[in-house]
Amino acid sequence: MTPKNHPRYESLLLREKIKDAYKEGYLSDSGMIAHGRGETFDYLLGEKTTESSRIAIDVSVAKLLLAENPVISINGNTTALVIDEIIQLAKLIPAKIEINLFYRNEKRIDTIENILNKKGYDNVLGTNKDELLYIKDIKNPRATASKNGIYSSDLILIPLEDGDRTEILVDSGKEVIAIDLNPLSRTSKKANITIVDNIIRVIPLMIEITKKFRSYNKEKLKDIIKDFSNKDNLKESLKCIDLNRI
Amino acid sequence: MTPKNHPRYESLLLREKIKDAYKEGYLSDSGMIAHGRGETFDYLLGEKTTESSRIAIDVSVAKLLLAENPVISINGNTTALVIDEIIQLAKLIPAKIEINLFYRNEKRIDTIENILNKKGYDNVLGTNKDELLYIKDIKNPRATASKNGIYSSDLILIPLEDGDRTEILVDSGKEVIAIDLNPLSRTSKKANITIVDNIIRVIPLMIEITKKFRSYNKEKLKDIIKDFSNKDNLKESLKCIDLNRI
Repeated sequence: MTPKNHPRYESLLLREKIKDAYKEGYLSDSGMIAHGRGETFDYLLGEKTTESSRIAIDVSVAKLLLAENPVISINGNTTALVIDEIIQLAKLIPAKIEINLFYRNEKRIDTIENILNKKGYDNVLGTNKDELLYIKDIKNPRATASKNGIYSSDLILIPLEDGDRTEILVDSGKEVIAIDLNPLSRTSKKANITIVDNIIRVIPLMIEITKKFRSYNKEKLKDIIKDFSNKDNLKESLKCIDLNRI
Repeated sequence: MTPKNHPRYESLLLREKIKDAYKEGYLSDSGMIAHGRGETFDYLLGEKTTESSRIAIDVSVAKLLLAENPVISINGNTTALVIDEIIQLAKLIPAKIEINLFYRNEKRIDTIENILNKKGYDNVLGTNKDELLYIKDIKNPRATASKNGIYSSDLILIPLEDGDRTEILVDSGKEVIAIDLNPLSRTSKKANITIVDNIIRVIPLMIEITKKFRSYNKEKLKDIIKDFSNKDNLKESLKCIDLNRI
């Protein structure tokens, strides 16, 4: 459908994946609007991995390799765009995968679970069969988490998460790595590490770096983390939005 | 559903209107993603009418009052967000209204036509019964226009239009006023006048200004237009994106 010479070809291909996911019933209408918001930030950032994103990715991988019980949170958008890569990354770290939807409903959860199962990944958490608890006893649908997953994890990777949820996770004492194209969002500001970049570039790069870092000892991994300031890194990301370049 | 104290309350209300329009079948999935792109730009612009937008609106109203056969083009997003105001503006100028969809299909056209009819507006153009011609003989679905509307008009107001369509209109010698939140888009650059602002603020303001300007004589209206440079105005809009304010 989309001609290869269209100035926005790559971006239009992603848009098709998002629309397909909506038609398949596992991505919400809000997920489509959210994709549009992300598109604009990606466009303003030059649709490439910046130096500050690269630094945040290195720190994130080191953190994931050092964590006791790391969990990767997925939603409709993540599933639509990078599910194969998420599975690969989860196996390499190793980390658990938990479905975590802002608009949770049984059908959507089942559809995502089936997608993972068909890809040979059977241990996904946060399904309809899974035991869900409220984080810090906050009786809010934004605060549910799988008992053996996010609820008991020390580090969570949240690609494309909303601000309320991120706040609950961070305030409950968990470490949070966010992937968010908006360097100004509540999620970006609240997370311990924020990768300001597009998940379609980030997850493949995390896989590559995990392959390199997993032979490092703990001291070396801690060394990679030690000087990182999320606040400073966000400022650097913000500087990459160059309106006069476009 | 949306709590009034939510930091993004106004923006979430608009999002609900867009989702409803999708459910009612007259807004495309692409229209939802496009809304998300607009949201980001609006947020970066401070969600207010800037001085440069205000100038472009004045010039646009003067142009509309001077035009021989002005047409306001509407699509799913415009209908969802400001259809009452569009009808009011069209009657005041007076200008015609033409339905013009990027993803044209009969059902969507009929639904929008019915919405206008129910509001007592019966003369809408670009319907399934209307005679459509190709602008400049370009045999492209982007180039269709109603014989008595856009095809024969001298000035077209296009809120939320795509780049291809804008190029065809401008290259065919028509004057084009665009309303576009992205000051860097092809539409913004190609249009004769670009209002970089949100249609939910622009159309009510255009109504107000039309009421004031319609008593002016031609000389006075021409005076309002004469020093306007779209290129300079776009530069001023771009300066209003202040990332350090947010």
